[in-house]
Formats: sequence, structure tokens, C-alpha cells
Amino acid sequence: MRPDQGPGSVGIVTPQTVRFDTPLALQCGVTLPGFELAVETYGELNASRSNALLVCHALSGDHHAAGRHSPDDAKPGWWDACIGPGKAIDTDLFHVVSLNNLGGCNGSTGPRSTDPNTGEPYGASFPTVTVKDWVQSQAMLADHLGIERFAAVVGGSLGGMQALQWAIDKPERIANAVVIAAAPKLSAQNIAFNEIARQAIVSDPDFHEGTYFRKGTNPDKGLMLARMLGHVTYLSAGGMGDRFGRELKSGDIGSAQDVQFQVESYLHYQGTSFSRRFDANTYLLMTRALDYFDPALDFGGDLVRALGQARARFLVLAFTSDWRFSPERSGEIVDALIAAGRDVTSATVHSAAGHDSFLLPIERYCDLLGAYLGRVAEELGD
Amino acid sequence: MRPDQGPGSVGIVTPQTVRFDTPLALQCGVTLPGFELAVETYGELNASRSNALLVCHALSGDHHAAGRHSPDDAKPGWWDACIGPGKAIDTDLFHVVSLNNLGGCNGSTGPRSTDPNTGEPYGASFPTVTVKDWVQSQAMLADHLGIERFAAVVGGSLGGMQALQWAIDKPERIANAVVIAAAPKLSAQNIAFNEIARQAIVSDPDFHEGTYFRKGTNPDKGLMLARMLGHVTYLSAGGMGDRFGRELKSGDIGSAQDVQFQVESYLHYQGTSFSRRFDANTYLLMTRALDYFDPALDFGGDLVRALGQARARFLVLAFTSDWRFSPERSGEIVDALIAAGRDVTSATVHSAAGHDSFLLPIERYCDLLGAYLGRVAEELGD
Repeated sequence: MRPDQGPGSVGIVTPQTVRFDTPLALQCGVTLPGFELAVETYGELNASRSNALLVCHALSGDHHAAGRHSPDDAKPGWWDACIGPGKAIDTDLFHVVSLNNLGGCNGSTGPRSTDPNTGEPYGASFPTVTVKDWVQSQAMLADHLGIERFAAVVGGSLGGMQALQWAIDKPERIANAVVIAAAPKLSAQNIAFNEIARQAIVSDPDFHEGTYFRKGTNPDKGLMLARMLGHVTYLSAGGMGDRFGRELKSGDIGSAQDVQFQVESYLHYQGTSFSRRFDANTYLLMTRALDYFDPALDFGGDLVRALGQARARFLVLAFTSDWRFSPERSGEIVDALIAAGRDVTSATVHSAAGHDSFLLPIERYCDLLGAYLGRVAEELGD
Repeated sequence: MRPDQGPGSVGIVTPQTVRFDTPLALQCGVTLPGFELAVETYGELNASRSNALLVCHALSGDHHAAGRHSPDDAKPGWWDACIGPGKAIDTDLFHVVSLNNLGGCNGSTGPRSTDPNTGEPYGASFPTVTVKDWVQSQAMLADHLGIERFAAVVGGSLGGMQALQWAIDKPERIANAVVIAAAPKLSAQNIAFNEIARQAIVSDPDFHEGTYFRKGTNPDKGLMLARMLGHVTYLSAGGMGDRFGRELKSGDIGSAQDVQFQVESYLHYQGTSFSRRFDANTYLLMTRALDYFDPALDFGGDLVRALGQARARFLVLAFTSDWRFSPERSGEIVDALIAAGRDVTSATVHSAAGHDSFLLPIERYCDLLGAYLGRVAEELGD
């Protein structure tokens, strides 16, 4: 029995597709006549429907956060380290709702979906989607599921930004916001890395201005480069050193010929497998959503005023070696929450794994998250 | 009068090409039958030929380190902030020798040169060149110029690595090594960024496996991406924030349409202008020279033993916000020099400008460099 199929695993899960025929007015001005969301749930909804917990995914995530789709699945969902019976996000206590965000490429309406106006895939013409739009679509999903208020909205990275936006936009519908390895908005350096990744994709001749599906091509090289670059920013310098050092995969530096370092072949592998499974237009859309995220913008740039809208309690977690969204960036959120008079718990967890830490079974991290959510569960009605 | 044309400028300079008809055996096993180096010199060589100072360039530099080629030149040489009469590298005191390294694309023998065996440009078939090879070719240049021993070999980044290798490989021919913003070898993260840049170039269809010159194409997009990525790693996160913040160049985040941030257009401009002036095969070669640099390798990986070969005195400088080659990496060099019983002066200069700091007229940096070299000049014969 594999560890994640035994105690601690949600076991075999089946995704559902939820169809919305209500129009959704997006922030960019476009209105989608309807849309679909791919959803998984883990754990039972209690009688008072008070124990629902929404998990929001990051850049390349989807609805498959825990368990396996079949006994033969090579890998469990992306947050299986944290979601399951007895785990930090305890499915014995919570009804966990996980979705593929609007604009995604794993079952929800996005660039790969058919545009009802043309009968062809949207491709690059899929409208710009923002974190605010996601919150709106997730609230519609909550309505559909009969969930008036989430006990918690939880996410790491771009997922944590959704939790933050939830607290501001839907204050009555979220009791707790758990914001992990996030930032109140991207830095110029963050935007620069995203822009290089986008340029790698759009300058790939197989991208065809986003109509690659019509040409029977795929911008594999551009996606590979984007993923390689993303990956380097997810890892810490120290963590990469510990893992790969300067170990050679092949060749001899002494004679300077045909040298390949292990870190190079690792990145090639990561990049190539990503380009097979992820849609390029979705990657562009998701990185733009990151760049545009700025919840203070509606409040004259004042994050304290923005968070003054919130009624939730907050848990804010960061990791020491995360240089993509460093502890200092989480500190900006914490400072603004305190200034706004909100109830906030925060911690910086020691880890050498960089931004990726939020996906890993790091003991103190899981303990902190589990303890906070355990208290949330204790205060729930039945 | 522009500041760099008045006092402090070396004025109008003329590059020379020095031809070597002696074979050069490279570390990779290939022997070049002959080669040319593009060279500039500033300041007079004294009667005892004791005041020569070698400047080594970094990844994308060349021999044009100071002054202008004509009165209409828009920009002076790349290190004009530090080289000139009365400047940190004082041309009233030193005879400064600056060259384009072997494998370069600005006048020295490199991928753009004609391979005498084929009558065609070398292109991608130009042999792998290492920092050790550069030191060897620079020593041949010194012979040609009648310089028995350099008062100092000075460089930043990859240039600092050449100064370090000089001290190990030619201990009797270098009195002082000035190693700025360098590292004793690259980290896995450094190598990863270089590899992504290389992949961007080689996966550009206009690269044609390095034979683009034959096809009448140029891998502009790949070079642009490589330069954009390099540029982000040269700047600090804080410095980029101060300079660009999240200022919009165009568009409106509120409506999420047609947004471009200033940092994006800046990187596009940098990337595009670079791809017009720099050779892709040279870029690949230079990043490989960086990756392979590891002077301890010949000494069983023991940097202390490697530096035990040196007889020079050392100045080692680093910058607080440099995350490409951080102060900790310079500290590794300093620690090894102390353990090897060498005479070393070191400092970490406060700067928000990241790795690029070594090119800038930062007061404390210029003062330290000038004071150290002033002492070197005082001890010279006439």
C-alpha cells in the first residue's frame, strides 16, 4: 500500500464538471455567457454546511489537489502532502472544495474551450481573467454547492492571493483566509521573470499568435523555456546547490568538452514534461493574472484600506528561502492586516526548498497549518 | 564638453589588432594555429615597463573599456566610470591594457572569424574556450607588448575570475589581482540561468545549429530572451523596484486590458539592442566559460591549495545587493586566500544596483579601488 493510499490519503477521487449558464461579467469588460468549472471535493459536508474549505491553486495547478484518479496513477494530486484524513487540511473535519480556475486547461472553460460565437477554440482570444474574476466565479461555485460561507479559503502563491482577494471582496462569505508564500502584489522583478517566460512562448514560431491548435503545432520550446525559468525561481539557490551542486551528468570540465551538469538535465526534463501537459495560452493568462493582482488598487493603492473590508481571521505563512515571494512580502500583508485591525496569525517557516516549500510535507509548516485549521474546526457548528 | 571627454576621460582611442602566428593549445584539446586579439591601451607604459595593468572583461564586454572611438560616439567604453586620468584605474599612473577575449565577437578571433581549414566562418564549430585559455592568450599578448609582469590584473564578474586564474596560473607575472563581484565557481542556480539562456538561443529556429551566418538569418529572439534573463539577474530586486516599481507603460490594470509595465518595455529594449550587436555563438561560448570556471579542479577541488600557487596580493570586492555573485561567494575567495596565507584586502560595498554595481561610479567602490591601486602605483619603479 502506498503511503498516500493508506491512512492520510483521500483515496480514489473523481472530478466533476459544473456548468454555469449565468453570464459572468469579467473585469476586462467581456461577459462570458456561461462557463464550466472542473471540481473535486474531499471529505463530507456537515449538516449545517459550515465546514466547507476552498483550496485555490497556483500558476500551473488544477482541481486535482489530493488522492488519485485511479489505483494506477503514478502521482497523487498536487497538494496531497497537506490534504487528507489526519493531515493539515483534515478531510475528517472539512469538506474540501478544489477547482480548476476559469481560464485553465484541465477541464474548466479556458483557451482550449470552444467559443460559442465562432465554434472554434478561444485560443489567444480568451478574455483576460483576474484574481477578482476567479473569486467571483468561485462564489458562484459556492452558491451552486449550497455553501453560504467558507470556513476557510486556503492557497499558496497565486492561490494565497485568491484567499486574500476573497477576504476583501466577499467578507461575509469567508471565516478564515490562509495566505501562504504570497505577496500583496508582484514586484518589478517578479513581473520581469513572468514577461521573459511569456516572450519565450510568444516568440516560439509554433505559437502562431496563439492559434497553434488550428495549425496542428504546439509551442513546446517556448513552454519548456518558460517552465525552466519558473522552476529556477521556485527553488532556492541553496536548495539547488544542496540538490545538484556542480555534479556532472556527462563530460569532463578538465578537457572542457561535452559537459552537461545535472541541474541542466533536470531542468530539461521538467520543461519538456510541462510543455506536453500545459496549454500555452493558459500559461500566458495565468502569469498575467499574477502581474495584475493588486487588491489595493480599488482603494487608492492603500492596502490597509483594502484589508479594512475584510472580516475574516488570517493565517499568513512564509518560508525563509523563498525569494520569489519572500518573507518580507508576507510581512507587508501582515503589517497591513494589523494596521487594519484584523485578527492575524503569522509565521516564517525555515526551509531550504524556496517557493516550492508550500507544496512539501515540512513538519513545522504542516503542524502550524493543521493547528490553525483545527481551531477553526472546533468552532464550527455540526 | 561631455564629462568623459574632459578631465577624467582617456579621450579618443583607437583599437589595434594583434596577430599571433604561434599555435595555441586550448584546454579542450584543439590547437588554434594562430589568432588575433583586438586591443586598446590607455596611459603610457613607463621606462621600466612595470606599470602595466590588464583589464579583463565580463560576459558581453570587449576591448573598448574607456574613452570614445570618435567625438560623435554616443557612449564611452564599458568601464569609463573607473578608467581615466584621476579615476580609480588611473591612466596617469598605469598603462592599461584591455582586450576582446578569444572567442569574442568584436574583433578578436572567434565564431565569426574565418576557419583557415574551411575558408568559412567557424560559427558553432569554434572550439570551447576556458578562463585558463584566456589567461594563456593574455600572457601571449603581454609577451608581444613586452610586459614581463602586470602591476595588476583587474576585472569584475567573469573578468574577476580571469584575475583569479592569472594569480594561480602565472604567479610570477602578476603583482596584484583585483577580483570584483566574482565567485570561485558558479552555483547550480548560476548554471541553471545560463542554461536557460543557451536553450533560448539554440531553440530559436533562426539559430540553425549555429550556422545562421550561412543562412542569412540571426537568432534575434533567442538572443533577446537570453539578454532579458541575464539583465534581470544583473539587477537587484530592490533596485528594480526603485527604478520601475509597477509603473505602467500603457494600459489599465483596473480593466485588465493591454497592460504593459515599464520594466517589460525596458527589458524588451535591452534585449533587442543586444541581439543586434552580439554574436549568438559567442554568447554560448562565454556562458560555457563561466560554467566551467573552477580553478580548484586541478587541485583536487581544494581552493586553498589552488590559491597556494599564487604570489600576488589580492583586492576582493563585493556588493550587498548582488545576488548573481553575492558577497558570500566573494567571502569564499577571501577565506581561501587567508587560509592559503595570501595577502588579501576585501570589502563589501553597499549598493542597490545588484551585480551591475561593478560598472557604476559608486563612490565608496571607486575610492577603495583607487586607494588600493594608488598604493600599487607608489611601489612601482619608474
